[in-house]
Amino acid sequence: MTDLRSKIREVPDFPTPGVGFKDFTPLLADREALSSTVGELATWVKEKNCDLVIGAEARGFILGAAIAIEAGVGFVPARRPGKLPPETISVTYALEYGQNSLELHPDLIPKGSKVVIHDDVLATGGTVEGIKKLVEQLGAKVVGTCFIIELTFLDGRKRLEGTDVHALITY
Amino acid sequence: MTDLRSKIREVPDFPTPGVGFKDFTPLLADREALSSTVGELATWVKEKNCDLVIGAEARGFILGAAIAIEAGVGFVPARRPGKLPPETISVTYALEYGQNSLELHPDLIPKGSKVVIHDDVLATGGTVEGIKKLVEQLGAKVVGTCFIIELTFLDGRKRLEGTDVHALITY
Repeated sequence: MTDLRSKIREVPDFPTPGVGFKDFTPLLADREALSSTVGELATWVKEKNCDLVIGAEARGFILGAAIAIEAGVGFVPARRPGKLPPETISVTYALEYGQNSLELHPDLIPKGSKVVIHDDVLATGGTVEGIKKLVEQLGAKVVGTCFIIELTFLDGRKRLEGTDVHALITY
Repeated sequence: MTDLRSKIREVPDFPTPGVGFKDFTPLLADREALSSTVGELATWVKEKNCDLVIGAEARGFILGAAIAIEAGVGFVPARRPGKLPPETISVTYALEYGQNSLELHPDLIPKGSKVVIHDDVLATGGTVEGIKKLVEQLGAKVVGTCFIIELTFLDGRKRLEGTDVHALITY
């Protein structure tokens, strides 16, 4: 099996001084690493028996649909404001610095459906927690959340308590 | 086979009055339509014998990696400025209204490699033409470009002359 961790490079002082950015673009560009990353995440998603995978803009889009296809379900994008006409529901949540908003098409997430949320990195958990609130507002259920990378020192799992969390690579 | 066209809805007057926005999120949310869209695009990409698929931020990310996996190659994201540390090359190009910039990691696209560029919609062709310039600047070759949707009345193919262009659904 490909050593996935070796395909992630750390960029120092990005986006702010003192922060080490985990750049997984070398993993994406390597066909074996890409394929086994998606394969492993999709195997986990399949066991959740979900109806949909939701991916968070923008980096959660990259593997979200690929995971959905391998797990045999559909994909729904959670987008930045103003990108999903005609009708959306919206959530604003805190980031480490500042805040962010995401929107969903309510008609694509049927009441009672089971959803897995995917994003590239679990950091503070704010993004996925925000999407989870929207899903629950629609009467659907988040049965799992999955990530390529988890930054355990930021304790994002705490904000996702009660939900199964899966990450391939932890720091 | 799933009728893919029936899974695209037109949103009138978005993003500007008089423009009909092609919303393909219902196609993504339908597992059969999603899987056959990626399957058909990947079959075309495979015949190009490329080394990489490049996807344009943000909507070109959604199927880009999935197409790459099914075609057995790696994926490289073309991103908005400031998102790809440490080193990038950058292009700015005209849109119908205003302009836009995209960046690539030069080290992920080896000299002499063959690349297919994917985006969701071929409109004026400006985005993909911009990425093509970057790829060629790196000494690599664009052997094809593929899209879910082509808006033929905007004549984007003209700007991609000399490159194979493939779109699943045309308007």
